[in-house]
Amino acid sequence: MANLKFQPLPGFRDFAPQEFALRSYLFNTWRKVAHRYGFVEWEAPTVEPTELYLKKSGGELPTQLFRFQDQGERDITLRPELTASLGRMVASYQMDYAKPLKWFEIGSCFRYEKPQKGRLREFVQFNADILGDAGEGSDAELIALAIDCMREFGFTSADFVVRISDRDVWTGYALQHGVPEDRVGDFLAIIDKFERDRPEVSQKKLDVFGLKREDLEAFILNPPAGCSPRYDAVYAELAARGLAEYVKLDLYVVRGLAYYTGLVFEIFDKGHGLRAVAGGGRYNGLVSTISDGSVDMPATGFAMGDAVIAHLIDECPAARALRDAALKPNVCDVCMVLAAPEMRERMLALASALRDAGLRVDLPLAPAKMANQLKRADKIGATYALIIGAEFPELELKKMSTRESVKTNIEGLMEELLPDAE
Amino acid sequence: MANLKFQPLPGFRDFAPQEFALRSYLFNTWRKVAHRYGFVEWEAPTVEPTELYLKKSGGELPTQLFRFQDQGERDITLRPELTASLGRMVASYQMDYAKPLKWFEIGSCFRYEKPQKGRLREFVQFNADILGDAGEGSDAELIALAIDCMREFGFTSADFVVRISDRDVWTGYALQHGVPEDRVGDFLAIIDKFERDRPEVSQKKLDVFGLKREDLEAFILNPPAGCSPRYDAVYAELAARGLAEYVKLDLYVVRGLAYYTGLVFEIFDKGHGLRAVAGGGRYNGLVSTISDGSVDMPATGFAMGDAVIAHLIDECPAARALRDAALKPNVCDVCMVLAAPEMRERMLALASALRDAGLRVDLPLAPAKMANQLKRADKIGATYALIIGAEFPELELKKMSTRESVKTNIEGLMEELLPDAE
Repeated sequence: MANLKFQPLPGFRDFAPQEFALRSYLFNTWRKVAHRYGFVEWEAPTVEPTELYLKKSGGELPTQLFRFQDQGERDITLRPELTASLGRMVASYQMDYAKPLKWFEIGSCFRYEKPQKGRLREFVQFNADILGDAGEGSDAELIALAIDCMREFGFTSADFVVRISDRDVWTGYALQHGVPEDRVGDFLAIIDKFERDRPEVSQKKLDVFGLKREDLEAFILNPPAGCSPRYDAVYAELAARGLAEYVKLDLYVVRGLAYYTGLVFEIFDKGHGLRAVAGGGRYNGLVSTISDGSVDMPATGFAMGDAVIAHLIDECPAARALRDAALKPNVCDVCMVLAAPEMRERMLALASALRDAGLRVDLPLAPAKMANQLKRADKIGATYALIIGAEFPELELKKMSTRESVKTNIEGLMEELLPDAE
Repeated sequence: MANLKFQPLPGFRDFAPQEFALRSYLFNTWRKVAHRYGFVEWEAPTVEPTELYLKKSGGELPTQLFRFQDQGERDITLRPELTASLGRMVASYQMDYAKPLKWFEIGSCFRYEKPQKGRLREFVQFNADILGDAGEGSDAELIALAIDCMREFGFTSADFVVRISDRDVWTGYALQHGVPEDRVGDFLAIIDKFERDRPEVSQKKLDVFGLKREDLEAFILNPPAGCSPRYDAVYAELAARGLAEYVKLDLYVVRGLAYYTGLVFEIFDKGHGLRAVAGGGRYNGLVSTISDGSVDMPATGFAMGDAVIAHLIDECPAARALRDAALKPNVCDVCMVLAAPEMRERMLALASALRDAGLRVDLPLAPAKMANQLKRADKIGATYALIIGAEFPELELKKMSTRESVKTNIEGLMEELLPDAE
């Protein structure tokens, strides 16, 4: 129960140990699955020159930046996302790594948004990217990673779906239906808002191109077979991995950002109409744009935010059960309980020996009643309490879950606690 | 080899995967030792209201802040350190936790300093604090944690020393020698600079108090027995833990910051006159100051930076060996090698099965020559290459370190790679 007087800034979060445990659970799950896929971790500076985001977006700077001048009069920005930094770093370091690069990152991003549920000013993203290969094998590997993150959290195909789309299908459609080449971007923007705009609004936007909303809707609901060979290739790769049930071709998805090329996708929960859980796609031109053409490298990537995932876990019983098992407070294998104050030095020596052996040990730092010491052992989730009394070197080892005690000595203790040690 | 064209801002660092591996090694070591001591992890927002740092320092704001106005005209600051946030959070959340709190944090801090060796604008600190107990048992537990972090990195008492001091000894000395009570702070500031100032400079500063430099120096070099009962208590606790060889009473140490009370300490490398590796001490008044008196909680803590530690490891053969063993690139247990392209779907299915079993698996995302696939297996440090050819389900498992191959099948493979599985 937080004291309301001492709050962080609006849209920023405190992670006291109980909240940090959830954060760790999310991070560790992402990290574990990324490692299984052979991805390696990287990190970027928290602050970058604003110019980097200008380059990425081709001149139109994202709104809602935490942007300021430093004392050296540099125009700098708290990173709103990681792809611009990734582009910069890949241009700089790619020579040192086997291609394709499979890189992931977990870290804070910052946006000056009106704080609301699921919209924070500092939030965490898991970013995964494959760079240096233009084929559908990479898109499939990346989407499989995203699916396996969801599965590792306890979600099934009843809970979420990966909606995959292909911007080139829409580009082809637009050109075939008389949209001028320099207006294709505007056309894509209309499709991007199709699900959110009221039908009249979409139709009004489409009027300039002489297109009918119903025709587009029919095309989305029954896309002609073979319209996206790229999707078909990705689907085949995912089906071979046993992941077909998690994906579908869904041309409603466009992804707003101008830098995407070709295949794009979003993970949606099937339940409560939340925002996308994750989104990404191909951005083959970005590294070249950011490096002024000196490094050209095809790329595909996605990002998954912590707030929406945490929310979905809350609403899915299977995911909640996995989370709760991971969050069970257990920061301590052995909580020392000093029953005879004159044995303090023996207790300290024994605690050091147990810690040197790798056990997590807590101990009374100041004199305290035995009952209070045992209460602490409970509260911090200790597996055992080890009671050191006047009979030392005889010891009492109490299993906190069952309250059962055994008398033992140091050798017996080591055997009980470190069965695999020499 | 970084391309110089695409650098981060001055004083900020890129962590491409090779640099990230070192970062992970430092973080994991800190985390492992902190867990052994029963500390739990927390995290604060990256940005805080500037007022928080004003409160902490009692009105005199630290210079060199990354301080700016957000779009809502709030005066905000990229955190220069964690203790102010800790004070705020403890005031807010302490009711939910058993006392004393043993909390640690690992994260970025920001200072607008002239970038130079070991002085960065974004750097990482490991922070450990014990709150809610005023006794020397807590100081000793904290110093033991700091020592064990150093030992875990491979340093011995030949490499570093913990210089422990007691500000109250100096307060007592000052008052006894005629320093007015309201000038004790100024007196402490002179001692703080004693080792760095030229003797004439120190003497000149001391002249206002009518004190002689030589007398102070003699006092430091031969502190009277029992001058700090607090140090003696801490020493006894550390000696009982077998850590006496790592510490000494050293009254040169004062720690500049005004908020320290009583016991303070710094870890110094014994070698090359680098800066302190870590520093900390008691700050019993801070939580009360930050919470406007609503929560009063004694506290002791320290911080250890990543840059100096990384530097020291570089210079210590034993520490270097531990680090290098931890950094050996091994991101992958099995690197799939596809010798027969028509077996791609079999390979994908097998890769999924191995990943589901928890193995770290890499695979060719696009068609590639076998030689190039094997080169990749080498470069990413794979333990095994698994060659899938036309003879599937017969497989060839190649141990990369010895280049030895065995023919096997899926059952044999699982037995070899997952010996402990059912």
